[in-house]
Amino acid sequence: MGEMRYPLKKKAVVLLSGGLDSTTALAIAKEHGFQPYALSFRYGQRHGVELQFAARVAAAMCVVEHLIVDIDLRCFGGSALTDDIPVPKDRDADEMGAGIPLTYVPARNTIFLSFALARAETLGASDIFIGVNALDYSGYPDCRPEYVAAYENMASLATRAAVEGHRRLKIHTPLMTLTKSEIICRGTALGVDYALTSSCYDPAEDGRPCRRCDSCRLRAKGFSEAGIADPLLARFGMAAS
Amino acid sequence: MGEMRYPLKKKAVVLLSGGLDSTTALAIAKEHGFQPYALSFRYGQRHGVELQFAARVAAAMCVVEHLIVDIDLRCFGGSALTDDIPVPKDRDADEMGAGIPLTYVPARNTIFLSFALARAETLGASDIFIGVNALDYSGYPDCRPEYVAAYENMASLATRAAVEGHRRLKIHTPLMTLTKSEIICRGTALGVDYALTSSCYDPAEDGRPCRRCDSCRLRAKGFSEAGIADPLLARFGMAAS
Repeated sequence: MGEMRYPLKKKAVVLLSGGLDSTTALAIAKEHGFQPYALSFRYGQRHGVELQFAARVAAAMCVVEHLIVDIDLRCFGGSALTDDIPVPKDRDADEMGAGIPLTYVPARNTIFLSFALARAETLGASDIFIGVNALDYSGYPDCRPEYVAAYENMASLATRAAVEGHRRLKIHTPLMTLTKSEIICRGTALGVDYALTSSCYDPAEDGRPCRRCDSCRLRAKGFSEAGIADPLLARFGMAAS
Repeated sequence: MGEMRYPLKKKAVVLLSGGLDSTTALAIAKEHGFQPYALSFRYGQRHGVELQFAARVAAAMCVVEHLIVDIDLRCFGGSALTDDIPVPKDRDADEMGAGIPLTYVPARNTIFLSFALARAETLGASDIFIGVNALDYSGYPDCRPEYVAAYENMASLATRAAVEGHRRLKIHTPLMTLTKSEIICRGTALGVDYALTSSCYDPAEDGRPCRRCDSCRLRAKGFSEAGIADPLLARFGMAAS
């Protein structure tokens, strides 16, 4: 018998868009002691610059691996994030809260989680982190807790591990019930540099946020409520408003 | 009030690999009165020639649309269908039945169904057909009825339709409990031309089957039990063995 080795850290696949939420989820995965394998997607999003943000976040936060998967969701259409539908701007909280936004991408989280599941299976990992949030994105069907629970149940039947009796797959949603300001406070306490993150649905080519889309407005409100200046604005020489 | 119009046929998304099973599932979808929207994937499979078969099947069976989506599963590895792992050959039924085959692609059906779900959502369809089979592929975790039921449950919570209270998504698996010979008899009765279908995991560039991989052997056994000559062999001038 060889000597007992201290167990290696468990691997986790972390879905990383380069935004504020997924970056915070990555920080929490690390805090929980996981070795993070980051996964991003080039899916035809108009805000493709977010992948540059994702790459900088991945490097700054020392992930084990950062895979960018090419998939083309434009062929399906149906979203302001992938089509020539204008991104809604200057909407107030009531307007944002009414129904499913135009920026909803059909089945996007289902597709993203499915690739995460494939990566987890090939890594022998049974943990996936996703930064979904049921409060700010209440209009997105695939951000709801009941959806995530059903996905986890399906995923636990889907893979080799399911048949061979290994540990059940766990989808971690550490931001599910947090407000945006709580997410920002949590991440700040963990040392996240939010200047590296992009939230805008319609940024300039250099990543400069539009400050008028739903996502920019939710971000601004979150930083304001947290009493923290958004370092992304300083990076682009923009006033905190 | 205008006159009542006879309702349009319902749309269904049909996953189509160009193989025997998915082609039969497509024929059954049409038999059930659905307008078929076929969906195939270029995923790095070594048997990429199957997409040419899929295109011919789609044309011959007059689908409304045939979309081929590019995704790269090679970056994950873990399968003889996408890696440089040799495809197992000359295995008997006992060997095929023992454990999960090397040709299993991690989370493949979960990924394929997720794209089908996205397409269904953008079409306003609530029906998906997939030619999975629990008998011949008992080793594949994502071909089992309990997996499909869990997927359907998740999918019914995942989309705009879930939030807006539309009809529950249905995943049709008309081949689930059929033997290969029953599938062949069913398709033959529906007029399927199996000379247009490819089952081989390791075909020649022109689509000529190897006749030695698990899939070729299951196909040959099915035609033999059905008492039908496989027209694909005649097409390539091959003896029925």
